[in-house]
Amino acid sequence: MSAPRIILASTSPRRRELLGVLGLTFDVIGSDYDEDSLDRDSLTPQDWVMQLAIGKAAAVAAQTQGDALVIGADTTVTLRGEYFNKPKDPADARRMLSELSGQTHQVYTGICILPVTNGVPGAPLTDYAITDVTFDPIPTETINAYVATGEPLDKAGAYGIQSKALAFIPKINGDYFNVVGLPLNKLVALLGRFGVNIW
Amino acid sequence: MSAPRIILASTSPRRRELLGVLGLTFDVIGSDYDEDSLDRDSLTPQDWVMQLAIGKAAAVAAQTQGDALVIGADTTVTLRGEYFNKPKDPADARRMLSELSGQTHQVYTGICILPVTNGVPGAPLTDYAITDVTFDPIPTETINAYVATGEPLDKAGAYGIQSKALAFIPKINGDYFNVVGLPLNKLVALLGRFGVNIW
Repeated sequence: MSAPRIILASTSPRRRELLGVLGLTFDVIGSDYDEDSLDRDSLTPQDWVMQLAIGKAAAVAAQTQGDALVIGADTTVTLRGEYFNKPKDPADARRMLSELSGQTHQVYTGICILPVTNGVPGAPLTDYAITDVTFDPIPTETINAYVATGEPLDKAGAYGIQSKALAFIPKINGDYFNVVGLPLNKLVALLGRFGVNIW
Repeated sequence: MSAPRIILASTSPRRRELLGVLGLTFDVIGSDYDEDSLDRDSLTPQDWVMQLAIGKAAAVAAQTQGDALVIGADTTVTLRGEYFNKPKDPADARRMLSELSGQTHQVYTGICILPVTNGVPGAPLTDYAITDVTFDPIPTETINAYVATGEPLDKAGAYGIQSKALAFIPKINGDYFNVVGLPLNKLVALLGRFGVNIW
């Protein structure tokens, strides 16, 4: 049996890099799924990110010929019931970082693997990970300097843990790679259920 | 005041990469400090890694002209009082991974900043970080496959968290970068005490 074609339905360079660590060969196809089509308020954070992961994978699967496993993922940040997605602009990024300063927030990533057989999408398997991330109290001048780097603007929660933001992150509790954008421990287990063994 | 010269007294490519994330300019000089000169059994793990960090920095500081801040670091892994340093050979790596399988172990990194003024070493400042790392139960064939990649052989505890090993690491509790080899949150605080501001 030949290895199935794997498609990552995300153009995030961080997700691409993480999936590459597993040593798998895969294609990257961005998804045009409309995230606003889902009513967030009726869902828990984990159900929301899993539904978005399914939506992203399904949009790519619908255009896929032959056989493939399509991987979808979505990450969000919450603090006491409030969502922190990608900031609208630098002022919004400063507001988010001010609210997250000195607090422990949650990062959720939903993942989905959607099998396609002879061009026909099958039943997706999904899972999710939660990681607690603790921020030190961040001085206003540090928030301003970090936002000025441009780094926060395309990231949920207005920070990237692989950037200078790590200077104000003393600890996490959970899967680190979930915070980067793809919980690889959970993903490897899902891949195994489709017969993909990274070893 | 011009920025002080910073020297990383470690040739670990992982430490070099992490220090680079902070945006600092620095030189790398390997230390010839003899780690066996220290009696481990008389020390706690945190004191041991801090003493080794001081020893590594001091060996480089002794050869440094002019002014500089010399950074030393040492990382070890412990499980129930047993140390797991770099494995001697593939069989030793397999033994370590078998013992760590299904358990939560501790990663300690000691850090030291040793100031040099006009070629004269001053008083070092030190700190350390502890991170709990949880391994899934690892099947023997996975241990064999991972050791066969060669990746474990130069790493404390016989694994690198930035490698395929992440597939069997569901969670950590503490500073992720400590596990990679340099607890940057603590290091940034120490640098600040020498007037180095990364922002």
